[in-house]
Parts: sequence; structure tokens; C-alpha cells
Amino acid sequence: MAEASVFPDFLAGVKAEVSNILDRYLTVAARQYRAVNVWGPDAAGRMRAFVRTGKMLRAGMVVVGFVAAGRRPGVATMRAGAAVELIQAGLLIHDDIIDRDLVRRGGPSLHVQYARLGRKSGALDAGHFGEGMGICLGDIALFMGFEILAGLPAASGPRAEILGLWSDDLCRVGLAQMQDLNFGQTSPDASEAEIRRLYINKTGRYTFSAPLRTGAILGGAEPGLKDRLAGLGEILGLLFQMRDDELGLYGRSADLGKPVGSDIREAKLTLFMRKLFDGAGPADRRRLARIFGNPGLDAAMIREVRAIAERSGAREALRLEMSRLRARAGRMIDALDVPPASRRRFYSLLDYVVERTK
Amino acid sequence: MAEASVFPDFLAGVKAEVSNILDRYLTVAARQYRAVNVWGPDAAGRMRAFVRTGKMLRAGMVVVGFVAAGRRPGVATMRAGAAVELIQAGLLIHDDIIDRDLVRRGGPSLHVQYARLGRKSGALDAGHFGEGMGICLGDIALFMGFEILAGLPAASGPRAEILGLWSDDLCRVGLAQMQDLNFGQTSPDASEAEIRRLYINKTGRYTFSAPLRTGAILGGAEPGLKDRLAGLGEILGLLFQMRDDELGLYGRSADLGKPVGSDIREAKLTLFMRKLFDGAGPADRRRLARIFGNPGLDAAMIREVRAIAERSGAREALRLEMSRLRARAGRMIDALDVPPASRRRFYSLLDYVVERTK
Repeated sequence: MAEASVFPDFLAGVKAEVSNILDRYLTVAARQYRAVNVWGPDAAGRMRAFVRTGKMLRAGMVVVGFVAAGRRPGVATMRAGAAVELIQAGLLIHDDIIDRDLVRRGGPSLHVQYARLGRKSGALDAGHFGEGMGICLGDIALFMGFEILAGLPAASGPRAEILGLWSDDLCRVGLAQMQDLNFGQTSPDASEAEIRRLYINKTGRYTFSAPLRTGAILGGAEPGLKDRLAGLGEILGLLFQMRDDELGLYGRSADLGKPVGSDIREAKLTLFMRKLFDGAGPADRRRLARIFGNPGLDAAMIREVRAIAERSGAREALRLEMSRLRARAGRMIDALDVPPASRRRFYSLLDYVVERTK
Repeated sequence: MAEASVFPDFLAGVKAEVSNILDRYLTVAARQYRAVNVWGPDAAGRMRAFVRTGKMLRAGMVVVGFVAAGRRPGVATMRAGAAVELIQAGLLIHDDIIDRDLVRRGGPSLHVQYARLGRKSGALDAGHFGEGMGICLGDIALFMGFEILAGLPAASGPRAEILGLWSDDLCRVGLAQMQDLNFGQTSPDASEAEIRRLYINKTGRYTFSAPLRTGAILGGAEPGLKDRLAGLGEILGLLFQMRDDELGLYGRSADLGKPVGSDIREAKLTLFMRKLFDGAGPADRRRLARIFGNPGLDAAMIREVRAIAERSGAREALRLEMSRLRARAGRMIDALDVPPASRRRFYSLLDYVVERTK
């Protein structure tokens, strides 16, 4: 179990450095945008508070990719990590509006913060006001991320490659988010294969493949290594999202920063849910249909879903798929041409992705 | 009156070239993103239809800035223009969600198109589904714009300068949009000076200053000219937005692509509205208060607002301010160190901004 803390410790180190960069960047932004209007420093302040609460896993991936190329990370790596965290913040702010998530990382989502502000200031429609302000703040976080990427202290070749990578990848993330929205609303019959592809496009890319490749580009890795890291990132993304599905039902809300069962309440079609519906008998399927998307979801219903997950074999099937993917990721790590310390880091990352509790 | 068509003719020429670039880019995107999911080609198709309906004023400004630097526009200029049009599309798609505008350029707004699709496919909450899809599409348009800017066929110095310019400027546009939302909802007492500053930050920057500067950077203009063009852009932005205010009450809905009076129905605090409230007597002010933000706004109410605009002197005050700004812009054009053909183009642009009917 000592191994389990190796990766979180590494991440904490990255977070300390990247937080400093973000703090400085957002302090300058607050000063600079004070001239625009009062919302400039307000936005910078909210963003600073928001990025601080993250694990900074994506910034960590930039560092991991850089180290894989055999280099010691410096200021360009950490700045790229900061950019990726701002982009992640922008996507999450928009996602919370789209998914109507009121809680994020244990606090009110950004659009909820603005809705409260609107209510206090007498906005005609505080809910919509909050969403509008949140759309703007998400846009601003994305622009800030691109600004840092465009100004990375690196040669113009790698810088252009990184900008091209992110703008293309983020288009794909946007399309995956559209598909996710449809799985919940208009296409409840999506297959396991479709959901896996969604996980790769939505989580795999911007959480693992793109940050790993970004680090590798900055580190001057040869093209083969960059591609292998991106391929490994897809598998890590799948595993990460499957662990997310599992934690959504079996985790602790204090760890998750949101209520257990929120996926079920929001009728979110996860891979776990797909296996659950497909593995359950007719009577259990009827029970699930009453619970799935039920706004009055309570602890008894969550216990019932857990019981169905056990007796239908859905949880076992999820665990089995995760074990196989973990073994596959291990083989991919073994095949990487990277320094020994980097290989150990990839193994601790893999442990973390599968075993994390938050 | 022959003069009035000089600038629209120029713009039509730019539009033809930029449309070709956008068509090609979005055709490739549709093919490439088909591998992600069905929403890839769908998004590219909707975007192609949307950008085609624009005047492409912002792409025109990139060309005007380039020509001011004494150069003949080539492929880099037109590609930059295409990027700016995609960024504009992303901002408009988000704006229409924020402002609840159902109609844009004579057709349903993008989020309304998606809401209809959701309704047909049985979405649980088609309105919110449409907004969620629209947020994603707006993000994608912004990423595409940045992708084209990052890949401009230009030296790395100017390319980095352009990317830095747009990411900073778009942060400011986002903050101005936040302020605009507050003027409508929580701060109905904003002063004329505050509204003017909003116009400069919201419209002036991304419609005029940033595209003009982009063209000038590509054309290798010296710093002094770039700054003077950006300064002129702010005045043009003010004039453009004031003309918008005026057309919102006196224009023809067929020209505007949206109903006359929509600003009034949506309780949007424009500079014209500010002058109207401030110039009206007590009885007229009470009449205005009943009409402003009234969802049942009809033709009789619009006639009443027009009558109040005349007798309060608000329209005259608006026209006077526009005349003064026009003279100031003329002096700024005279002071530019640009080729004679470029100076004539600036004058035809100024005529267009003040006299346009759509």
C-alpha cells in the first residue's frame, strides 16, 4: 500500500510548482483586466480559487511526458502544465452548465456562484444569468490557456506543434461532449463500444494523450515515442473513466467532492450503467429503470443499485475489463523506450489511475 | 450614393475568397471528425452554413490592415480572415445562448436548431439540450479559429504576436460580455461613459482593432501604425455599435435578420436607450418603463418609443455624437501614414460603418 502514495506525492510536487505559476499569472491578469471592468479581477479571483482545488493530474501528465523524453522538467514544462489546467478549468465550467452539476470539487460550480450573485443583485432570471456568466468565464479560461501555450518559452517548431495538437484535440473533446449529452438525452441505447470510444475521445485525449504528448514535444522526443505515449494515454483514459464510474456508485462523497450516485440521478449513461442494464434480469431491469434519472434518488435506492450490480455480475464484468486493460497498459509501458525512473513513474501512474479513491 | 456601395463591394470580394477557404477547411474537418462521431460532420455542416451568411466584415478588416501596411494581400491574409470569422461564429453562438436570441441572420440560432433536433429525438429537456450542444459548438468554432491562426503561413514572430493578441483580446471581450449581461440584469443604471467603454471592449476590439492589427502584423507594419490602427478601430467600434442601436429601432427586420425592437424587448441597455431614458420627461419615462423589457412588445409600442426618441431629443443626441466621432475618425485616417488607395478604403469603411442599413 506504500506504493499507492508514490504517484499522489509526485502530483503534489507538480501542483505546488504549477499553482505558483497560475497564482502569478492570475494576479497579473487581475491587475491588467481591472482596466476593462470590475469583472476582470472578479473572474481572475474565482479562477484562482477554482484551479487551486484541482489534483492537477493533467499538469502532472505534461511532466511525465517530458521526463519520458529523458529530460529534467524546467519552466517551459510547468508553464505548459499551467496552460493545460486552465483549459481543463474552462471545459469543466462549461460542462457543469451543460450537465447541470451544481457542485464541483466540494464547492458550488462556477455558474452557481454567479447565479447566487445575480440573485443578490436582483437579476431578472438569476439561473440564466449564472449560466451566461459561466459561459463567459469558461471562454476566458480557454483563452488564457491558449495565451500561455502561445507564449511558451520554447522553440517555434514545438510551440506550433503543441498549439496545433490542442486546437485539434479540443475540437474532438467538444464533439465527444456533444455525444455524451446525446447518450443521456436522445440515445439511451448506445452500445458498450460507443461508450468506450466516447471515453477515449472525451477523457483519454485531454487528460492523458494530449498532455503526455505536450510534454514529449517539449522534451524533444522522437515521433515514435510521442505516438506510443498518446496510445497509452487512450488506455489510461478508459481506465480512469471506468474507475470514475465505479467510484460514482461505491466512493465516498467527501472524497468525490459531489454526492454519490449523481450519475444515476442525472441519467448519465456510463459504461458501468450499460453493463448493469444489460446484465440485469427483467425484474431488476424494471427496478433500475425506476431509479435511473430519478430526481428523488436516496440512500436505499443506491443500496439497491449496488445489490443489482453484484447479482447481475456487472461489477465483476467491469473489474474484469479493468484488469485486462491494466495488463495491456503494463505491456505498453514495458515496450516504451524511456529511462528506468520514467518507467517506474508510469507504473505508479497506472496504479493510481486504477486504485484512486478520489 | 454611389460611394455607399464601394465598401460593400470590397467586402463581397473578400467574402468570396474567405468563403472558399472556410468551405475547404470545414470539408476537411467534416471528413476528419467523422471518425470521432456523427456530430463531427454535423457540426462542420452547420458551421459552414452559418459562416456563409455573415458579411465577413472582420475578415475584411484583416485585409484592410494588411493593405495599410503597403502590401498586396495573399493566402496568409485570407486564412487569418477565415480564422477571425470562425472566432466570431463561436462568440455569436455563445452570445445567442446568453442573450436568449432565437433568431440570427434571418434563421434560427444554432442552439435553437439543436433544441429542435432534441425535441424530434425525444430529449428529456430539449431547450437545455440545445443550449448544451450550442456551448459545445461555440467552443469548437473558437478552437478551429485558433487552429488556423496557429498554422498561418507566416514567420513565427508575427504568428506568435497574432496568437497573443487574440487570446488577450478575447479575454477582454468575454469580460465585456459579462458586463453587458449585468447591464441588462443587475446594473440597469450604467452611465453613458460605462456603456461607451463596453462598446469599445465588446465590439471595437474584436470587430475592428484586433483584425486591423492582425492584418498590419502580417503585413509587417511598424509598431506606430499598428497602434494607430487599433486606436481608429476603437472609434469605428463605437460608431458601429451606435449605428446598431439606431437600426435596432429604425431598421427593417428583413435587413437586420431579426425583429425590429428586439433590444427593447430583451431590456438591453444600449447607449441609445440610456439617452432615451435620460432625455425623456417623467410621463414619457413611465411609458418607456412599461415598454422596456416587455415580452408583448408590438408595433404600436415601437412607434411610441420612436416618438419619444424624437421629442426627448435622444435621437438627435445620438446623431450628434455619431457626427463628432465620424469627424474624429476622419482626422485619424488623415494622420495615417498609408498608401493613397488604403486611405480611400478607410474612408469608404467609415461611410459604411455609419450609413449601413444592415
